[in-house]
Amino acid sequence: MTSLAIESKPAVLDRLAHVSDVHGAPALRDRLASLGRFVAADLGAFEQEIAAIPRGARVIHQAAHHLLDLRGKHLRPLCVALASRFGEGFTPRARGLAVAVELVHSATLLHDDVVDLAERRRGEPTACVVYGNAASIFAGDWLLVTALRRIATVGVDGLLDRMLGVIDEMIVAESVQLERRRKVTGAREDYFHIIEGKTAALFRWAMIAGARVAGLGAEAEVSLERFGLHLGVAFQAVDDELDFADHVGPGGTGKDALADLREGKVTFPMVVALERDPALRGRLEAMLADEIVRPDALAAVAAAIRATGALVATRQLAEDHVRRAVATLDALPAGPARDALETVALASLERQS
Amino acid sequence: MTSLAIESKPAVLDRLAHVSDVHGAPALRDRLASLGRFVAADLGAFEQEIAAIPRGARVIHQAAHHLLDLRGKHLRPLCVALASRFGEGFTPRARGLAVAVELVHSATLLHDDVVDLAERRRGEPTACVVYGNAASIFAGDWLLVTALRRIATVGVDGLLDRMLGVIDEMIVAESVQLERRRKVTGAREDYFHIIEGKTAALFRWAMIAGARVAGLGAEAEVSLERFGLHLGVAFQAVDDELDFADHVGPGGTGKDALADLREGKVTFPMVVALERDPALRGRLEAMLADEIVRPDALAAVAAAIRATGALVATRQLAEDHVRRAVATLDALPAGPARDALETVALASLERQS
Repeated sequence: MTSLAIESKPAVLDRLAHVSDVHGAPALRDRLASLGRFVAADLGAFEQEIAAIPRGARVIHQAAHHLLDLRGKHLRPLCVALASRFGEGFTPRARGLAVAVELVHSATLLHDDVVDLAERRRGEPTACVVYGNAASIFAGDWLLVTALRRIATVGVDGLLDRMLGVIDEMIVAESVQLERRRKVTGAREDYFHIIEGKTAALFRWAMIAGARVAGLGAEAEVSLERFGLHLGVAFQAVDDELDFADHVGPGGTGKDALADLREGKVTFPMVVALERDPALRGRLEAMLADEIVRPDALAAVAAAIRATGALVATRQLAEDHVRRAVATLDALPAGPARDALETVALASLERQS
Repeated sequence: MTSLAIESKPAVLDRLAHVSDVHGAPALRDRLASLGRFVAADLGAFEQEIAAIPRGARVIHQAAHHLLDLRGKHLRPLCVALASRFGEGFTPRARGLAVAVELVHSATLLHDDVVDLAERRRGEPTACVVYGNAASIFAGDWLLVTALRRIATVGVDGLLDRMLGVIDEMIVAESVQLERRRKVTGAREDYFHIIEGKTAALFRWAMIAGARVAGLGAEAEVSLERFGLHLGVAFQAVDDELDFADHVGPGGTGKDALADLREGKVTFPMVVALERDPALRGRLEAMLADEIVRPDALAAVAAAIRATGALVATRQLAEDHVRRAVATLDALPAGPARDALETVALASLERQS
C-alpha cells in the first residue's frame, strides 16, 4: 500500500492509486503509474488554477470554493488534458478549457444539491447546508458564468456555442429527471435520455475541447467525442452501481447510501429490476408515497432490486461502454496520450467513489 | 379613461397608458401616445418572439413561460428597440438582442423568487409556488442559457462577453444583498453597489446592444450606456418607493406590500431613514430578529421611515437620475428615437407598478 500525502497530489491520481491499491490488478496498476507520470504536472497546474479562482469576501465565492476545495475526481479536466496531448499539450489555453469544464460541472452540483436537499457531498456537508440555499444558487450561477467567460477568453472557434448547447442538454435532462422522480416509469429510453444529457454531454465537450486545442482534424475529433460519450455513460452506470455499495471504510463514496433510490431517481438498476420483476413497481411506489422514506422499506426494495441481478446488468452496461470507448481510440495515433485515455476508461470501472 | 384589450397591446404601452390616465399630465400623455405609435409594431414583434420560445413538454419550459406569460414591463427590450431606431431600426438581429435581455432579466427573477421565498409576482403566484423550487431553479438556468445562445447567434462583436460580465455583476450584487439582509447596515455605498449591479447593469447592456446594431459610433454608444445607467438607478429608486405604496386598486404592484422591508433588504428609504434617525436601527433590528416579522412592528417601522422624509428623498434621487439620463441624450441626433427615450425616462417616474 502506498501512503500518499493527499494535499500534495492531484486528486484524480489519488483516486486512481486507490483503485490499484484496492484491486491490486498488476496490469492496471502499472498503467495507472504510467498515466500518473504522464499527467501529474498537468493536473497540478490545473489544480493551482482552480485554487486561484477569486476568493472574494462574497458569500457566493465562499460557497463556490467550499465545493471546489473538496476536490472532485477531476475526470472531465483530465479528459481535456489527455486530448490536448495529441497536439502541443496542456497549454494555458487547454488549461482554461479544463478549468471551464470543471466549473460547469461544479455549477450543476451546487444547483442539484439545492434541488435534492442534499446534505453531504464528497464526504462533507454540502454548500447549501453550510452557506444556505440562496448562496448555493447564486454560487452556481456565478461558476457557470465564470466558466463561460473562460471559454470566451480562450477563443477557440465553436467551443462556447457548443458549451451553451451542452448546458441546455444538461438542464433539459435535469427537467426530465425531475418530472420522473417519485413516478417510477423506469423506461429505458428515459434513462438514456437523462444520462446522456446529464452526464455524457459534458464528457463529450471535454474531449472536443481538448481535440480542438490540439488541432486535431474532424475525423479524430469525432472519435474523441464518441470516446467522451461512452466514457460518460460508463461513468454514470458505475455511479448508479455505487448507490448500492456498502458505504464502509475510507473508500466510501462521500454521498448518502441509496440516495438515488430514496429520491426515486431513475437509475439503470431500477430500469432493469422493473423489467425483470414488474411487481416491484408497486413496492417502489408504496415506498416513495411516504413523505420520509422508511429505512426498512428502502432496504427491502434495495434487496429486491439486487435479487433481480440488476447490479450485474449495470456492471455489464458499464463494461460494454468502456469497450466501445476504447474502440473509438483506434482512429487516433498510437502513443502515450491514447494509452492514457484507454487507462482512464479501464480505471473508471474500478472506481470506488 | 381608455379601455384597452390587454391581450392585443404590448405590455409596456398598457402600463404607460395607465400612467397618463392616472396622472393626466397632458404633455406626458401626448408624448406617450407618440411613443406608442413609434414602437407599437416593434413591441408587438418582440412579444410574438417571446411567445414563440419553445413550450416543450418539460416542466422547466412551463415554469419559464409561466413567468414570461405574465408579461413584465418589457422596459429593457424597449431600450434595445429605441436605441436600434438610431440606425436601421428593430431588425431581426435587434429583436434577438431584445429577447435576450428580457430572458436574462426573467432568469434572475426565477432565481430571486426561490431565494426570497416569494409567493406573488406580477399579481400571480410565482413559478416556484406553482411548479416548485427545483423547476424554478432549472428554468432560470435554461432561460439564461437560451439568452446567451441568442446573443451568440446574433453575433454582434463584444456583446456576449459584455453580457457575461453583466451577469457576473448581477450575481455579485445579489450576493452583497444576501449578506446584508437582516443585518441593517444601511450604508449608502452598499446600496449603490447593489443597485448598479442588480438593476442598472442590464439597462446599460440593453442600450449598448441597441447602439451596436444601430451602428452608432463609440461616443454615442457611451452616451446611451450612461442613459441606461441613470435610467436603471431611477427605476430602482421608484421600485424602492413602490414598496411603501398603498397597494389598492388595479394599479397595485402585484408584489406583497413592504416585501423589501419585511426581508430587511437595503433600499434607499432605509438608507436615508437610518442616516436621519439613528435610533431606527435598533427598532429595525428588533423587527427582523423575529423569525416571522410581526405586522404591527412592520407597520410601525414603515411609519417611522416615512416620518424621516425618506420617501421624498427617494423621489428626489429618482428625479435626479432621470434628469441625468435625459442630459446624456444631448450627444445624440435629434429625432423620434431620442424623443422616445426621453419619454421613457420621464414616464419611469410615474409608474405605478
